[in-house]
Amino acid sequence: MAQSVEQAIQGGVTLVQLREKSVSTREFLELSLRVKEITTHYHIPLITNDRLDIALAVDADGLHIGQDDLPMIKARELLPNKIIGVSVSTLAEALLAQQQGADYVGVGAVFSTPTKTDAAEVSLDQLELIKKSVTIPVVAIGGINESNLRQVMAKGIDGVAVVSAILAKENILDTARHLHELLKK
Amino acid sequence: MAQSVEQAIQGGVTLVQLREKSVSTREFLELSLRVKEITTHYHIPLITNDRLDIALAVDADGLHIGQDDLPMIKARELLPNKIIGVSVSTLAEALLAQQQGADYVGVGAVFSTPTKTDAAEVSLDQLELIKKSVTIPVVAIGGINESNLRQVMAKGIDGVAVVSAILAKENILDTARHLHELLKK
Ligand code: NI
Repeated sequence: MAQSVEQAIQGGVTLVQLREKSVSTREFLELSLRVKEITTHYHIPLITNDRLDIALAVDADGLHIGQDDLPMIKARELLPNKIIGVSVSTLAEALLAQQQGADYVGVGAVFSTPTKTDAAEVSLDQLELIKKSVTIPVVAIGGINESNLRQVMAKGIDGVAVVSAILAKENILDTARHLHELLKK
Repeated sequence: MAQSVEQAIQGGVTLVQLREKSVSTREFLELSLRVKEITTHYHIPLITNDRLDIALAVDADGLHIGQDDLPMIKARELLPNKIIGVSVSTLAEALLAQQQGADYVGVGAVFSTPTKTDAAEVSLDQLELIKKSVTIPVVAIGGINESNLRQVMAKGIDGVAVVSAILAKENILDTARHLHELLKK
């Protein structure tokens, strides 16, 4: 695992994208505040998924929006100074996101994932095509683990988003500390 | 129905509170934009339930928060110039909401409602006690219809919130036009 995470970091963008669909706004807020303490301490950007209200409430570094979330143009209007990433699964969506001012695109799920079952599956060839066609960073999202990371990074992308690596663990703080040690190597 | 709505209007606050829990952010946004056109046309305030992001995105007149949503203090910080209402079901919650700067409290559900099954039930006596104890407007929310409106208004409250009256109808525009005619009487 150490080597995989290192490779991801060496590949570029590293971020924690916090996603919660089935909890109340208050619970998502409280979880985000706890995660924010950790990401701030370790200097990792915290990107809130979908919920611009939560991004504002916790002063996250950015917002990640999918095709069913706020439109990119509206998100930029409301968050002029934050990072905005857009989930895409086709080349057309990637080009549109770039044109509308996205700071990066998240392509996925490249592999199937337990955290977002409704995500479209994107082939590694599609990922490579998107990477070659846009100038903004391309981050792979979804289902990436130590066994497939090398394949993904070989596509020349700018990074992978950690979505479930921290959240799937019961003890968030210990897990973050462990990641931190790995990142320092 | 005409007389009931008229009584509610004569009682004070009239607003449309838009609530959607089970749709995507994009769908809630699009629904809100359609309703906003209607409420703007008929000069009825549109209050978004829970979702501050949607309230910002459609420039709603206000936000209504429940006890599981953003805290009042955070909501005020992010929406300094919008109406903010807070759902309460006890006197303690009502007094706290007032102290934290809520513009009104929504008390409910006074009667059981098909739109929000998790709402606490509040007795008419409790409603009256809250009304006598706070200085901000008190709006009854939930399960109010032509058959029980008179009982509720007799408690001296400032209005009732229309939550499902418009949304339960298939043709939003026709329904709004119909309500508008009733309101003009
Ligand atoms: Ni440290």
